[in-house]
Amino acid sequence: MGSQLIRIIACFGLICGGWTKKTQSVSTPNIVIMLMDDMGWGDLGVFGQPNKETTNLDMMASQGMLFPSFYTANPLCSPSRAALLTGRLPVRNGFYTTNGHARNAYTPQEIVGGISEDEILLPKLLKTKGYVSKIIGKWHLGHRPGYLPLKHGFDEWFGAPNCHFGPYNSSDRPNIPVYNNSEMIGRYYEEFVINRKTGESNLTQIYLEESLRFIQNQAMNHQPFFLYWAVDATHAPVYASKLFRGKSQRGLYGDAVMELDYSVGKILGHLVKLGIDKDTFVFFTSDNGAAVMSGPHQSGSNGPFLCGKETTFEGGMREPAIAWWPGRIPAGTVSQQLGSVMDLFTTSLSLAGLLPPDDRIIDGIDLTPTLLNNSLIDRPIFYYRGNEMMAVRVGLYKAHYWTWSNSWEEFNKGINFCPGEEVAGVTTHNQEEHTMQPLIFHLGRDPGEKYPISVQTKEYLVVLKHISAVVDEHKRKLVPGVPQLNMCDLAVMNWAPPGCEKLGKCLKAPKSDPWKCDWPH
Amino acid sequence: MGSQLIRIIACFGLICGGWTKKTQSVSTPNIVIMLMDDMGWGDLGVFGQPNKETTNLDMMASQGMLFPSFYTANPLCSPSRAALLTGRLPVRNGFYTTNGHARNAYTPQEIVGGISEDEILLPKLLKTKGYVSKIIGKWHLGHRPGYLPLKHGFDEWFGAPNCHFGPYNSSDRPNIPVYNNSEMIGRYYEEFVINRKTGESNLTQIYLEESLRFIQNQAMNHQPFFLYWAVDATHAPVYASKLFRGKSQRGLYGDAVMELDYSVGKILGHLVKLGIDKDTFVFFTSDNGAAVMSGPHQSGSNGPFLCGKETTFEGGMREPAIAWWPGRIPAGTVSQQLGSVMDLFTTSLSLAGLLPPDDRIIDGIDLTPTLLNNSLIDRPIFYYRGNEMMAVRVGLYKAHYWTWSNSWEEFNKGINFCPGEEVAGVTTHNQEEHTMQPLIFHLGRDPGEKYPISVQTKEYLVVLKHISAVVDEHKRKLVPGVPQLNMCDLAVMNWAPPGCEKLGKCLKAPKSDPWKCDWPH
Ligand SMILES: [Ca+2]
Ligand SMILES: [Ca+2]
Repeated sequence: MGSQLIRIIACFGLICGGWTKKTQSVSTPNIVIMLMDDMGWGDLGVFGQPNKETTNLDMMASQGMLFPSFYTANPLCSPSRAALLTGRLPVRNGFYTTNGHARNAYTPQEIVGGISEDEILLPKLLKTKGYVSKIIGKWHLGHRPGYLPLKHGFDEWFGAPNCHFGPYNSSDRPNIPVYNNSEMIGRYYEEFVINRKTGESNLTQIYLEESLRFIQNQAMNHQPFFLYWAVDATHAPVYASKLFRGKSQRGLYGDAVMELDYSVGKILGHLVKLGIDKDTFVFFTSDNGAAVMSGPHQSGSNGPFLCGKETTFEGGMREPAIAWWPGRIPAGTVSQQLGSVMDLFTTSLSLAGLLPPDDRIIDGIDLTPTLLNNSLIDRPIFYYRGNEMMAVRVGLYKAHYWTWSNSWEEFNKGINFCPGEEVAGVTTHNQEEHTMQPLIFHLGRDPGEKYPISVQTKEYLVVLKHISAVVDEHKRKLVPGVPQLNMCDLAVMNWAPPGCEKLGKCLKAPKSDPWKCDWPH
Repeated sequence: MGSQLIRIIACFGLICGGWTKKTQSVSTPNIVIMLMDDMGWGDLGVFGQPNKETTNLDMMASQGMLFPSFYTANPLCSPSRAALLTGRLPVRNGFYTTNGHARNAYTPQEIVGGISEDEILLPKLLKTKGYVSKIIGKWHLGHRPGYLPLKHGFDEWFGAPNCHFGPYNSSDRPNIPVYNNSEMIGRYYEEFVINRKTGESNLTQIYLEESLRFIQNQAMNHQPFFLYWAVDATHAPVYASKLFRGKSQRGLYGDAVMELDYSVGKILGHLVKLGIDKDTFVFFTSDNGAAVMSGPHQSGSNGPFLCGKETTFEGGMREPAIAWWPGRIPAGTVSQQLGSVMDLFTTSLSLAGLLPPDDRIIDGIDLTPTLLNNSLIDRPIFYYRGNEMMAVRVGLYKAHYWTWSNSWEEFNKGINFCPGEEVAGVTTHNQEEHTMQPLIFHLGRDPGEKYPISVQTKEYLVVLKHISAVVDEHKRKLVPGVPQLNMCDLAVMNWAPPGCEKLGKCLKAPKSDPWKCDWPH
């Protein structure tokens, strides 16, 4: 008794190792994955955004663990999200195209494909442990009926299958539907308004309300839950509600960030209020780098990193990331672990006491040792465009086997994936092959990828040898999945989603006339 | 009694406003200004350096106030330091040249000039309130006898009058002397070794020991002190002691930062240990942006900002800045105040109960209201190169009247002040005049100065009108000082500094043969 008291005092304000853990064992903690859309590494105060407007996220970091080297699996929405939910690289789970070399493909509504039924998604596995799963926001793994969230393990859904980036009226092409579970309840720019002139929309508030209600219901039912909060206010066209319009020093984009930051604070506060914060693992990240090609009004910041969305430079794939789990994850820590959105699959399973499927290669690793003990696990990060491995990071080194920002043709039209940035021989407008002699950077000394290490140094040779072995091993085991993003067809668009009849919002589809989708970059 | 107890409990962990302040009034607080050399905004974890290696500075920020919009008065060493200690722009205090248009001039040892005796430096004024002042590290306001620190109000000095950037042996030109008070005690690369191959040097440790000893002595004497800790380990050639070599993931530059960070922690800890932390105002900042032209081994990061040292883009002049004063400055706060190194002059005087001289224009403002109450004071920031006002910041807007990174001639030799960065019409290699129609940026939306606001917008017209009034007012009152950095002469170098006889280290000066110094950028 006396010695326990001393122990409690000694532990006050410190991390109390195994002792604390034992008293708080949670066999099926709730899991909340907050996935932002096109938010950049440099958009959070804690990652150096100069205006320091993300007080809730900065607080989340001070109570949790910050990951400065956390990556997405692909520099754009759909493949990144497919990777998160399957724990597998897009080249394995089929979220890529072979219609051109090293092309970025995603799921606009003319796309025929979607997530294969052979893929096993996180919520389906969590269900075996009694989890109730909900996705709030953007799905993006295919909008045709068989591809929708409730067909792949989610129990509930509130959100849209595609991006809110056009169309803006249903005259030529159907506006994107918003679903409540398995039926549409309206469309963007119709029932779900985003004012394109002012950027005003209540969507983030709606998504917040949906999440608070879901969490509350699950807490009352004492049922473990998985909430995949996939909000999209920071994807162009960027939006914020009236409450947040004009709040930020950064303009509309900053308003959107502030509203999301506010929402994060509300959700964490809700967990605390319901007394389930110590039973809930929360992870905040983004699906790809800031879309800097969209300019300062419609995109964010990748901090000191090169280029942005669509590229395999750091600006395209390094993401803001914070883990939060009071009492389990040590507060105010920084992890140097190389992490990936795919790890959220494996780690979530691990937290729920599950192993990942053993009949396929899973790229995500279990970050539990990192989260609970800040230990480090050696693992590479692969940077893909389509089915081409463009680059790999091993430790502090990154090797580019191919470089490409975007084509001269697109660049000359004013599309620039690296505005204001130009590194000779690195930000190339032709697809440049370096497979025989990759460009190697030391990301510790040179996070901005500006200074390739000279091929004549011993450092280069030693690193290349080490990285080559990792790449060879990766390529040897690589069996690409069936590419899902090759075919397009106007007939598959969201003309008449389930539920349209009730609303009188069914549109007439044209005749099927499929073509090979053209992916320009 | 009962109500006081409630008050104490209510205040636990909170900022306790006027009540706390009343009980801790300090009429002459100690003042510590920590001025880094060429350290960039982006070099601190708290400002977004991805490796998060500055745990002491990050802790300092969490206990103090962070300034994301704090500026130097000039994008290089000497003028910046002259401005800090006089509270005046270099164009007023004479730390500039008229030998070419918009040139950066400083004080290498062939320079004839130095700080004018008409200028009144901070330590001289503080002396009237009983302060003992010491400078540790780099002086850089002139090395000829009349210009040295003890002639301008400092009571003690340990350090060097010039940069440790060459010469590296005394054969052609004298190595830079290191002074203890008014006599030299050795020279760089002789008694004070910096291994140019490994970057190893004990200098930061020596500077740390000197500062701890000074603080301790003053605390024991119960005498208020001003410590100007002007360490230079992050100026090329960058150095770190054996203890820190290889510690950083960022290479030698990071090692130097880590050793300085460690030293900051030691100094703050010393203040706490001596029980004088609540009587000591500490301010950490840097003299100019990271010298990105020196490459990844010898320079740091300016985070998301454009270019670096020598330029009037944000990367050249925005500085890391943290204020710390437990019990007085609210902990963990961020101030959006536009600050300047010149404010350290006026603010220090204010803290000591002094007013700045009223017979001259003082550019520094009193930041006390900001520090103690996080209030905001409207004031412009001027960006000078030589006697040319290149740019001005008013609120969130910055207007460039002249743009220039460096000349084609220098650029073609491989000297690049903006490596990897190129913004058409902004990072120009000719001196481009925009005085009739300045380039205007919104630094909130566009901290990287990549998107000039269109001159055809209403925003541009409104902002220009407002900024023009500020500029007109500034220019109307501007009376340039006598330029001190025009003349050079090999005879004035550190051949035979005071004290050299005792050491047998006097060198023979050549005959005087002055020339107009050539400043290439
Ligand atoms: Ca996205
Ligand atoms: Ca400097």
